[in-house]
Amino acid sequence: MEALNVERLDRAKFSEFGDILETENAHNYLINNGNTVRFHDMARIDLLGTNPKAMISIFRGSPYPLPVEIELMERHPLGSQAFYPLQKNGYLVVVAPDEDGRPGVPNAFFATGLQGVNYHANVWHHPLLALNKTSDFIVVDRGGEGDNLQEHYYDEPYVIERV
Amino acid sequence: MEALNVERLDRAKFSEFGDILETENAHNYLINNGNTVRFHDMARIDLLGTNPKAMISIFRGSPYPLPVEIELMERHPLGSQAFYPLQKNGYLVVVAPDEDGRPGVPNAFFATGLQGVNYHANVWHHPLLALNKTSDFIVVDRGGEGDNLQEHYYDEPYVIERV
Repeated sequence: MEALNVERLDRAKFSEFGDILETENAHNYLINNGNTVRFHDMARIDLLGTNPKAMISIFRGSPYPLPVEIELMERHPLGSQAFYPLQKNGYLVVVAPDEDGRPGVPNAFFATGLQGVNYHANVWHHPLLALNKTSDFIVVDRGGEGDNLQEHYYDEPYVIERV
Repeated sequence: MEALNVERLDRAKFSEFGDILETENAHNYLINNGNTVRFHDMARIDLLGTNPKAMISIFRGSPYPLPVEIELMERHPLGSQAFYPLQKNGYLVVVAPDEDGRPGVPNAFFATGLQGVNYHANVWHHPLLALNKTSDFIVVDRGGEGDNLQEHYYDEPYVIERV
C-alpha cells in the first residue's frame, strides 16, 4: 500500500477542497458594544438541490488506531459539510481531487483541536477520522431532498502510518 | 430593579424561544460503518428574506461580572442564531416573549458548557453573556440582504444577581 504523508493543515493547500475554521489570523471585529469579538463567516456553506436546509448536528467519532487504511471516500454533491472539534482533540483530514468522477490520490492533513474544516459541495473526503480518543464535532451540513451521498472504494487502499 | 431568577435550561421551557443543542437524550444513530454517532439535526435554522445564506462564525465573549444588568435586548427577524460553547464554560441565556413589537419580562437560564442554544428568527434575546472567563462559541446565523437586527432598551433594566 502506498503511504501518505500527513501535512499540517494550511489555508493555501486546503483552499481547493474547502475552508479552515480557526480564529488565528482570521478576519474579526468587535460587536455587542465591544464585549464580543466576532470571527466572521469562516465557511462557504453550500445548500444546493431541491428544498435544501442547513442542519446542525454533533458527530461523536471513535478514534482510529494507526496505521489507518484509507479505502472509502465519499462526497456530498448537494451541500458542504463543516466540522469543528469540541474537545480540542487533533484529527485527520483526508481529501482528494476529483478525477473523472472518482477520487484521485488523497491529500492527508493533521488538524489541530483548534481547527475546523468545511468541505465544499462535491469534494471527496474520508469519513471522520478521530485520533487517540473519542471526539465530538459540531457539524453543519445540508438536509433536504435528493441523493446527497456518493461513495468510492479505492481498488488499492492508501495507508497513514504516522501523524 | 427587578431581579430575575435563573433557571436551568430545559427543553420544555425553552421551546417557545428556540432549540437546545445537547447530546444528552438527543436523537442519534450510527453512521460511517458504525464508527461515528450522529446526533442529528438539533436546530431549526431559519434563513429568511432576500438572498439569505448560512454562516459559521466564532464569537469570543468577555465575561460579565455579577450582578448583570439586563437592559438591551435584540432580535434577528430574518434568521435564527445558534451558539455552541467551545470550552465547556457555562453561560447565561436571556430571552423574552414579544409583546407588541417589544420584549416582555425576560426569562433567564443557565446553560452548561455542554449545552448550545439556537434562537429562532425574531426571538428577543440578550447579546452573548459569558461568565467567569473569556469564552468562545461556534455561531451559525444568517447573512444576506436586508436589515436583520432590531434592538430594544428596557426603560427599567432587570438584574441577575446570582447564577
